[in-house]
Amino acid sequence: MKAEIIAVGTEILVGDIVNTNAQFISERLFALGIDVHYQTVVGDNPGRLTDAVSLAFSRADVVIFSGGLGPTDDDLTKETVAAYFDAPLLFHEDIKLQIEQYLHKTCSGGNTKQAYIPEGAVILQNDRGTAPGIILEKNEKTAILLPGPPRELLPMFTEQVEPYLKQRSGFVMVEKMVRIFGIGESRVGDIISDLMESANPTVAPYAKDNEVTLRIAAKAETEKAANAMIEDMNKKLSERLGAYIYGYDEMDMAKTVVALLQEKNLTIACAESCTAGLLTATLGDVPGVSSVLHESIVTYSNEAKQKHLHVSAETLAQYGAVSEQTAIEMAEGIQKTTGAKVGVSVTGIAGPDGGTEEKPVGLVYVAVAYGGSTTVRRLQLIGTRGKIRQASVLHALNEVRKRIVSK
Amino acid sequence: MKAEIIAVGTEILVGDIVNTNAQFISERLFALGIDVHYQTVVGDNPGRLTDAVSLAFSRADVVIFSGGLGPTDDDLTKETVAAYFDAPLLFHEDIKLQIEQYLHKTCSGGNTKQAYIPEGAVILQNDRGTAPGIILEKNEKTAILLPGPPRELLPMFTEQVEPYLKQRSGFVMVEKMVRIFGIGESRVGDIISDLMESANPTVAPYAKDNEVTLRIAAKAETEKAANAMIEDMNKKLSERLGAYIYGYDEMDMAKTVVALLQEKNLTIACAESCTAGLLTATLGDVPGVSSVLHESIVTYSNEAKQKHLHVSAETLAQYGAVSEQTAIEMAEGIQKTTGAKVGVSVTGIAGPDGGTEEKPVGLVYVAVAYGGSTTVRRLQLIGTRGKIRQASVLHALNEVRKRIVSK
Repeated sequence: MKAEIIAVGTEILVGDIVNTNAQFISERLFALGIDVHYQTVVGDNPGRLTDAVSLAFSRADVVIFSGGLGPTDDDLTKETVAAYFDAPLLFHEDIKLQIEQYLHKTCSGGNTKQAYIPEGAVILQNDRGTAPGIILEKNEKTAILLPGPPRELLPMFTEQVEPYLKQRSGFVMVEKMVRIFGIGESRVGDIISDLMESANPTVAPYAKDNEVTLRIAAKAETEKAANAMIEDMNKKLSERLGAYIYGYDEMDMAKTVVALLQEKNLTIACAESCTAGLLTATLGDVPGVSSVLHESIVTYSNEAKQKHLHVSAETLAQYGAVSEQTAIEMAEGIQKTTGAKVGVSVTGIAGPDGGTEEKPVGLVYVAVAYGGSTTVRRLQLIGTRGKIRQASVLHALNEVRKRIVSK
Repeated sequence: MKAEIIAVGTEILVGDIVNTNAQFISERLFALGIDVHYQTVVGDNPGRLTDAVSLAFSRADVVIFSGGLGPTDDDLTKETVAAYFDAPLLFHEDIKLQIEQYLHKTCSGGNTKQAYIPEGAVILQNDRGTAPGIILEKNEKTAILLPGPPRELLPMFTEQVEPYLKQRSGFVMVEKMVRIFGIGESRVGDIISDLMESANPTVAPYAKDNEVTLRIAAKAETEKAANAMIEDMNKKLSERLGAYIYGYDEMDMAKTVVALLQEKNLTIACAESCTAGLLTATLGDVPGVSSVLHESIVTYSNEAKQKHLHVSAETLAQYGAVSEQTAIEMAEGIQKTTGAKVGVSVTGIAGPDGGTEEKPVGLVYVAVAYGGSTTVRRLQLIGTRGKIRQASVLHALNEVRKRIVSK
């Protein structure tokens, strides 16, 4: 099955927004085993949209549209595709009522337009907006029309379009994301290069924000068979990358650490210098974190490190604020002053200024005080200030994770 | 002048990467007054790429390509476009030497391929990679070939392609970004709807992450004339939106607040509950912040609020942790305990759980203690946990800004 994606909207052509919908849809179609040959963006222009529709259907079996389903006059996707399929637009009273319920008011002209659906179409429910999605089939060609806003498109695709496409394809796709930290994408590639050549299940790496994720995708006739293929591949990956695998699927590093702390009934407190709150804020993004995180202290200045964390003046004078010794005293200080079971500290030079030959930008120390002992790790990170701070946070969380797991 | 953008690369069609290059190029072309009618993505497939090239040149004067200039055999953009323009590829010894200098080694087969340039082309220097950019003109049609990685493409476009296009267009474009906070995009639109209809200079709103930015773009024969048009429009915007305008161009809210603190020789400390470090971390992202930010405290629990900030047990018992009174005591407590000139606090319910009828998710209090008085603001924010926390941070920074400015 060959597919194309057409995003409709002048706002994309003038660079107001990035076409993330195309990436999302492409990624999902790839996982379903459907080839995408072209992505196109066209403006809210009747002639050019009509041309794009004809061209796409001359090349592909399925064309997925995003955008142009709104209430205004320049929203033309539905009208143009319906004309191409020669399908009259019929008014649906029930859709008008749904739109009115969503808007908490009576439909005005524009929204009434959204209650017209091409004859014979499958209607896709939209709980997050006023434009229903539409699937239209004729002469072996399928048009799938989706609303443009990602918060409407993404769940509609996952919940309604994917089951439809899976049913049409006659097989089941199952995926598992394997989350890896502490090793770069190219080394991962070297270690599992033979596995990455597997055709089914496939294994593909995604590098993002200092992490690598491997996606295993299996295609089979039943979900059970697909799951078995996934587990078999996961076992092979674990054998080679076990030490670097920290989680699966939606469990990112912060969620993993919070879940571990909750499971072991531990509390954590952070003493942050160069990350300046970002470590605590990253934990703070996890719902329910308040059961394990009660307080943290940002100590940017030496005075603050002494006052709040009781780092000794001698340590600061002898080794400096960015040192193994200071990191250890910060971790032990925050553990002691807060009474948290786990004390974690970060101190380093995030740049762009402040680096020296001896202590360059990107030098960061992370220490973890837990269960009567303190461990410290020296990192030499690269990149912008933002990237160094973000990598420091992930390393700190990973050190915490390793300490808790090993207990 | 009509333009199209073609991104070449199977990695985009399988959803591995988002086509941010197209957005960047579209945005810049729009600012230059060049219309983009289509964006296309095509894979590393000779037949389909040839079709895409022919189609684009049948519709547009200028086609900008990104990607497919790499050293491997499936990088085909240059070869395909050269064939379309009937231009033989000629070997350039100097480019081979540049590539070798960049790689710190002798060119192998693939990189040698990158030293071949279509006859008659303008060569665009690439300091960040091995693929030079190329501009090829023939019969009133122009092809601009750029390397795919954004870190190579963006500076090459800004530094070399834009001057070329400006020279061709014979006019100068100047832009100014007007940064606005505390008012939504639709209200901004209502207030300046007549100004948004202006053809030159143009005024366009961009809403992102709880902020609105207006871009003024002026086209004139000289930079001086364009600047005068910008300033004239900016004056009109200031008359209507003055209270909401907090900065210009690259000065985001955190940079604006840090610059103000530095200018007035003030220090700041934050007492954070629901934002859990995100306020401090946002300030911490600004280079040089250590001159004004020495310490902050995250007090998630009631105990921590009492211990570190001396919030009274009575206040917590009577009004609760999320209250005007607690916010005030937190701000005054952090000011006092740290000795910072400005104490700012955030306490609220970020959700998804923890809301009640009386204190729903999204209820946030922000207080600022400064110069002998404390002000507090009640916010009712909407969205996800992440969005509520991020909006809380911006509101807190904005309250700090307003207090400092008014002194």
